Amino acid sequence: MKNIFAEVVTIGDEILYGQITDTNTAWISAELDKIGIRTIRKSSVGDQKEAILSILAEAESRAQIILITGGLGPTKDDITKLTMAEYFDSELAINEQALAEVTHFFKTRGRELTELNRMQALQPVKALYVPNKIGTAPGMWFEKEGKLFISMPGVPYEMKEMMRTHVLPRLKQHFEMPVIFHRLVRTVGIGESIIAQKIEDWENALPAHVKLAYLPSIGQVKLRLTAAGDNLETLKHDVENELAKLEPMISKYIYGYDSEELEVTVGRILLEQGKTVALAESCTGGYIGHSLTRIPGSSAYFRGGVVPYHNDLKREQLGVREQTLEQHGAVSEATVIEMAQAVRIRFGADVGMASSGIMGPGGGTDDKPVGTVWIAYADEHKTWTRRLQLGNERNVNIVLAGINVLNLLRRGLLNIAYD
Amino acid sequence: MKNIFAEVVTIGDEILYGQITDTNTAWISAELDKIGIRTIRKSSVGDQKEAILSILAEAESRAQIILITGGLGPTKDDITKLTMAEYFDSELAINEQALAEVTHFFKTRGRELTELNRMQALQPVKALYVPNKIGTAPGMWFEKEGKLFISMPGVPYEMKEMMRTHVLPRLKQHFEMPVIFHRLVRTVGIGESIIAQKIEDWENALPAHVKLAYLPSIGQVKLRLTAAGDNLETLKHDVENELAKLEPMISKYIYGYDSEELEVTVGRILLEQGKTVALAESCTGGYIGHSLTRIPGSSAYFRGGVVPYHNDLKREQLGVREQTLEQHGAVSEATVIEMAQAVRIRFGADVGMASSGIMGPGGGTDDKPVGTVWIAYADEHKTWTRRLQLGNERNVNIVLAGINVLNLLRRGLLNIAYD
Repeated sequence: MKNIFAEVVTIGDEILYGQITDTNTAWISAELDKIGIRTIRKSSVGDQKEAILSILAEAESRAQIILITGGLGPTKDDITKLTMAEYFDSELAINEQALAEVTHFFKTRGRELTELNRMQALQPVKALYVPNKIGTAPGMWFEKEGKLFISMPGVPYEMKEMMRTHVLPRLKQHFEMPVIFHRLVRTVGIGESIIAQKIEDWENALPAHVKLAYLPSIGQVKLRLTAAGDNLETLKHDVENELAKLEPMISKYIYGYDSEELEVTVGRILLEQGKTVALAESCTGGYIGHSLTRIPGSSAYFRGGVVPYHNDLKREQLGVREQTLEQHGAVSEATVIEMAQAVRIRFGADVGMASSGIMGPGGGTDDKPVGTVWIAYADEHKTWTRRLQLGNERNVNIVLAGINVLNLLRRGLLNIAYD
Repeated sequence: MKNIFAEVVTIGDEILYGQITDTNTAWISAELDKIGIRTIRKSSVGDQKEAILSILAEAESRAQIILITGGLGPTKDDITKLTMAEYFDSELAINEQALAEVTHFFKTRGRELTELNRMQALQPVKALYVPNKIGTAPGMWFEKEGKLFISMPGVPYEMKEMMRTHVLPRLKQHFEMPVIFHRLVRTVGIGESIIAQKIEDWENALPAHVKLAYLPSIGQVKLRLTAAGDNLETLKHDVENELAKLEPMISKYIYGYDSEELEVTVGRILLEQGKTVALAESCTGGYIGHSLTRIPGSSAYFRGGVVPYHNDLKREQLGVREQTLEQHGAVSEATVIEMAQAVRIRFGADVGMASSGIMGPGGGTDDKPVGTVWIAYADEHKTWTRRLQLGNERNVNIVLAGINVLNLLRRGLLNIAYD
């Protein structure tokens, strides 16, 4: 078993100048990763011949597989096909299968085959033809001294279809693949450096074939364990064995594994417990409701919410007492407790959640600077609150407050007390 | 005036293996483009020393500016700082400003400064220190034989803040830039190809030094006019002259210019008219409230909202009549009219907006397939409704419904009737 390295190259001015975000390369390398092919570099170049020739030669010097997307359209600015023909010193000729397929494509759509589209059947004779079932630009598969060059369209759904039906199966046939096994451990409410301290001894004692990576995002840290070897069962066993040691060190903070997002975890727990939730969102302004409802099926556990942005609405819509608001202020423990308890009752939910805070840039005081947020959890038996001290960035504060509310909901439902 | 070329390099296994999609490089090259710097290549490499050293040398051979993101975190797998110190043959030493700032960062958040975080103040002595106002990893600015290497954190909001406040201003000072003048015309509620038809003659008659670009995003199309030359006043005049011809052709759809987002436009109109708005969001689940409240100062015109996700809440919280729900269903013109009118009154706002729809993937019927959405506008004098037929992608549907509600609010306030 030897390592197989790939490079992914995107061709197109629109990516280079930032007019569109490239989502192809992330997808491609994730798919390669699943079958044990390691992407060692990604590159984007524009629709210029010299730049394309140069990146092809560079990639060839480093990797066994070079996957290329983009530049296969029928218009003048798309020069990938001509440039690859030049790189491989190959003539172009009409490929009969390609011509039949592009003719069929236009016929079934009731459109006329233009000369530009007919030219798409012109293929380098040294390339293997790769059909495009859902578009007009076929792919090309070149082999040169044991290295593979595969050119695909830049349109994401055409590229994905081509990868799934042709490229990935052929790659698996072509190479003797290493075996790789991943697990992702998802944590919330703990910083990267604190985790690193807590798990330092374990991390240092990891076997050589098991690697750890920290993947931080706003309010969350994911830990990825990757094992490489030649027997999947052994690797699974080794990773699960390490996981079993890791989990007790940070168990309060682990909310899920692999692809399960926090909103999905919370929904799953609510479903498992047969409970529903309602939200009283002041400072988060609807963000938590949006986070929950972007998950399909959330109507099974999300009753609804109220956004009482103004204080009079906290009184009128939720019955928060005038006295509470006057004595403690809208951003206070007393207020979020009344909000969470009220929305729970008024919206007929098992659990009520509330947020109230100063998100900035204005509105801070000495006592309650920008970033001060109170959140609350209320169910039939208990009420929990948290005071957060966030930063100065309004939009980051909204996301962080939202994540903290979802985590408080998770911990409330599972009865995981805070220290 | 000579061309200035940049390369953008992202460092991180998580990008290379496709675990996250790189959105940084598109943003960076779009910002560079605005000040006349052309990106000639983008590359991603993993957290490996040899790969980083190699891409730095390659980029240096091609471009004058090398912008690098990622790999600056406090943990062992982040090696960008050490590797760049090696590349530039620079020692590391505690940077006092960095230490003061990271200490302050933790103190204001009531968290303890760990040794790992203290090490983030260790900086290559040959690098100019670039502060990170909203995170703990500072940036680095190296100069070598007229070439610039700028290293920034991979966290998008930290990188953007650093680019805006430090990197872009310094780049403009450092180079003699060509003079470029941009205007962005923002439209909503009209497709790219329809706009192209409406403005075809005008587009074909544009002077050679004024370029037009279509920048489509979900539900919106932005038109960017770019003039290049050597006199700013002349360029401004030429662009404004073309704008004056363009605007009458698509005036109903233009909501703003340059950086003014739709939520900001709507807020500005509400402020100008001295009016407030309240929301009854069913299918959008809080997304519109979030869109409005992420704008600083929105409390001046946003009263609040209700998310009556379940039908009983549409009755209880908004007083939608049982009969309406039974006869027409929750996703109907009659229901959204009652919702918009009720939230307007109950939340004490001048305008009430409502949404109700089937976002998918489940819940569609022959009559009302997935993507069917009703939205409503209600003020003291009039009630307007729209039926939308969106697609099958839940998350795209939520965003599109939100944009349509904001556009209906804009057109209702400005009394711009639909055809």
